[in-house]
Amino acid sequence: MLHNIPNKTYLTEAQLPDYWYNLRADMPPHAPFLNPGTGALLTPEEAMAVFCEESVRQEFNNTDRYISIPGAVMDYYRMYRPSPLQRAYALEKALDTPARIYYKFEGNNTSGSHKLNSAVPQAYFAKQQGLTTLTTETGAGQWGTALSMAAAYFGLKLRVYMVKVSAEQKPYRREIIRTFGAQVIASPSDTTAIGRKLLGEDPNSGGSLGCAISEAVEDAVTSENTRYVLGSVLDHVLLHQAIIGSEAKRAMELLEETPDIVIGCAGGGSNLGGIISEYMADKLQGKPAPYFIAVEPASCPSLTRGTYAYDFCDTGRVTPLAKMYTLGSGFRPSPIHAGGLRYHGMSPVLSKLYHDGQLDEARSYRQTDVFKAAKLFANAEGTLPAPESSHAIAAAIEEAVKCRESGQSKVILFNLTGTGYFDMLAYQQFNDGTLVDYVPTDEDIAAGVAGLKDIPGNK
Amino acid sequence: MLHNIPNKTYLTEAQLPDYWYNLRADMPPHAPFLNPGTGALLTPEEAMAVFCEESVRQEFNNTDRYISIPGAVMDYYRMYRPSPLQRAYALEKALDTPARIYYKFEGNNTSGSHKLNSAVPQAYFAKQQGLTTLTTETGAGQWGTALSMAAAYFGLKLRVYMVKVSAEQKPYRREIIRTFGAQVIASPSDTTAIGRKLLGEDPNSGGSLGCAISEAVEDAVTSENTRYVLGSVLDHVLLHQAIIGSEAKRAMELLEETPDIVIGCAGGGSNLGGIISEYMADKLQGKPAPYFIAVEPASCPSLTRGTYAYDFCDTGRVTPLAKMYTLGSGFRPSPIHAGGLRYHGMSPVLSKLYHDGQLDEARSYRQTDVFKAAKLFANAEGTLPAPESSHAIAAAIEEAVKCRESGQSKVILFNLTGTGYFDMLAYQQFNDGTLVDYVPTDEDIAAGVAGLKDIPGNK
Repeated sequence: MLHNIPNKTYLTEAQLPDYWYNLRADMPPHAPFLNPGTGALLTPEEAMAVFCEESVRQEFNNTDRYISIPGAVMDYYRMYRPSPLQRAYALEKALDTPARIYYKFEGNNTSGSHKLNSAVPQAYFAKQQGLTTLTTETGAGQWGTALSMAAAYFGLKLRVYMVKVSAEQKPYRREIIRTFGAQVIASPSDTTAIGRKLLGEDPNSGGSLGCAISEAVEDAVTSENTRYVLGSVLDHVLLHQAIIGSEAKRAMELLEETPDIVIGCAGGGSNLGGIISEYMADKLQGKPAPYFIAVEPASCPSLTRGTYAYDFCDTGRVTPLAKMYTLGSGFRPSPIHAGGLRYHGMSPVLSKLYHDGQLDEARSYRQTDVFKAAKLFANAEGTLPAPESSHAIAAAIEEAVKCRESGQSKVILFNLTGTGYFDMLAYQQFNDGTLVDYVPTDEDIAAGVAGLKDIPGNK
Repeated sequence: MLHNIPNKTYLTEAQLPDYWYNLRADMPPHAPFLNPGTGALLTPEEAMAVFCEESVRQEFNNTDRYISIPGAVMDYYRMYRPSPLQRAYALEKALDTPARIYYKFEGNNTSGSHKLNSAVPQAYFAKQQGLTTLTTETGAGQWGTALSMAAAYFGLKLRVYMVKVSAEQKPYRREIIRTFGAQVIASPSDTTAIGRKLLGEDPNSGGSLGCAISEAVEDAVTSENTRYVLGSVLDHVLLHQAIIGSEAKRAMELLEETPDIVIGCAGGGSNLGGIISEYMADKLQGKPAPYFIAVEPASCPSLTRGTYAYDFCDTGRVTPLAKMYTLGSGFRPSPIHAGGLRYHGMSPVLSKLYHDGQLDEARSYRQTDVFKAAKLFANAEGTLPAPESSHAIAAAIEEAVKCRESGQSKVILFNLTGTGYFDMLAYQQFNDGTLVDYVPTDEDIAAGVAGLKDIPGNK
């Protein structure tokens, strides 16, 4: 049946937004970042020793509502954007729901996720600054892949510190990154002082994201013409991801559709900040707006069970302090398969919006329920979703089922952040019935946040 | 730079072709299929014992130029089609060529390749016929994945005989197929007589595509309400893939572009038959037409070094005999990574067109050169290509470099059939410098075709 509203809606390249919408221009400022050593306000100059200058300028810019996307970044965006806005007719039919379900699919690029949206501008800023080299860390590998693609395009060297256990478990992710010319270093490594120290203590360490961040930062600040790049949590990353929501809103407007509910999964928060962007602008400006739902894993429930306080952005405790919903930087998330959601904290922007009641709701799902939703979606829609993205699917399905029961035909929009191609071990466990759930006890949660009281800013 | 011709061109869903163009209506008939047992003409009734009825009717239809695509198939096509027609601006810049390079990208669906275009109608035909179950074989896994997606959508059971060594080496492919609800059986298996016989002879056999076909066919003909489905070589498969070329031609016409050269890789031939479809129609009807290039691996050179003769379509010698370019069904292709091109024969339609001089040229590349082209393409365009598809890339680059030398700005169109996500072991070997080439000796070629003289139809 040829529908009036197509299965997929693409903006033309001329219709693509050529700006990033800066949420912070419309909201009260969140608590400032603090220097982790002194507890004083973090200055742009301090941050520029680690990050690219333009990224830092954006990090501190909470006044400009629209920030122009540089031409060279638009050139790259046009190679893989617009991402499609898809109407989930087959899922609606499978659920027998009167709801109209839409999803923005960010997985149709080689990095496999939305991460490329921030990798491209950050690599471009480095190039413009005359840098030769970038460093970063990667866990599941999506961010490392995205940055390797952007670095290759702009002719930059890249060293990716990949959590050793991930590098060993996901050799194919490692090879994609190498195919784009980047060097992959299993962390802990003997190329940094902190890596050597850790290896001295435990030669068989499988590493951690915290350790990989520490090594990448040390490498950046001790190497010439080199800076460190981060793929989530920070305000400038959320800024770049706003392109998702700006595109989605334009496409929905072309279809004369207005979402009643907007849903995103939430780890560090960048994709959720992306999909809600200009819809949240409406709310902050007092206009009618959708109901916003953040979805997190039951195993790592920073919004639903965490504390709003200053904390380190990394488990290695080398990064600036941010005020956010956190489980404590010492909280060790259980080994669920949605690696991109295994983060103790949450974007300071989203944390503030949630604390202020602008982000309406956070909810959590157990991974077995998430994979049930993923399988239902895949079999209906023919797209295999990433476990992270499937948290949003689970919530969309729950809302659509409510519509079936109430007879309401709400318009539901969610962000499908990536493909599940590199998560087949997880699907295998689900297919075999061996996938297990992890839910922290109240004691686990209390232990995680116990140390926060000693952190500058919380005293 | 916002170009007049966008990076990606999508037809609207209303502009999608709603027919398959049937090349055979415009060309002299190729030699008929023969019954492998009797050497007599294969009848539709004989074929319908193995294949779905509608597939067989299409197989024998060489008169209808346009065949309507059923509505239910269009519904699925609209979930992942149109595939984009992409302008390779970044590749052109990297090559410093005045050529305008376009590619049709068929890899942006969960099966990862163009195979879905034929899986969907074949599953639909089975459903319409009242069948409950399908069987097939898969080697590299793309076809098995595509058919599992289609079977899930139409509510059919599916048993996929997966070459045992592939099932073991590519467990993630196996899991995608299982996630879509199909049963994956490592072949040789103990579920069929031929499997048990082979296991009796060699309990450790890693299997072969020939054996997997034999098992899938035996399963189909001995089970109730079950038929066997094939994903390449046969005429009805080429027919379904014609959608690629019909879409590409419409999109090129919207851009007011006319290709001078059309390129496709060639294994069994279905994607090449697809991309050339309506451009070849022009040639067969005496209109101006592009120059057509088929690209095959140097290790399995059926068009460039094979013989035009009757042969079995499978190495297990159970399928009908077809007249085609072949290296002999006993030829054992070397273990190159482009698994989809490791086929001894070639589509009878394409073989005839090549024999008649309508398909202008066939050429072959060694895999190390293919991976060089793949890496250059990935780093410029940000899309990781499958090794099979990269054969077409290598030819497109060669033609674009000729343009640089001659100063001609030819328009080059090639088919990018799939993504390289599941070929990272091959990329790893390339990245490590351990990838090797295989080129059959003249003696290898002579040995492969030696048995053809004894086959019915060649005597």
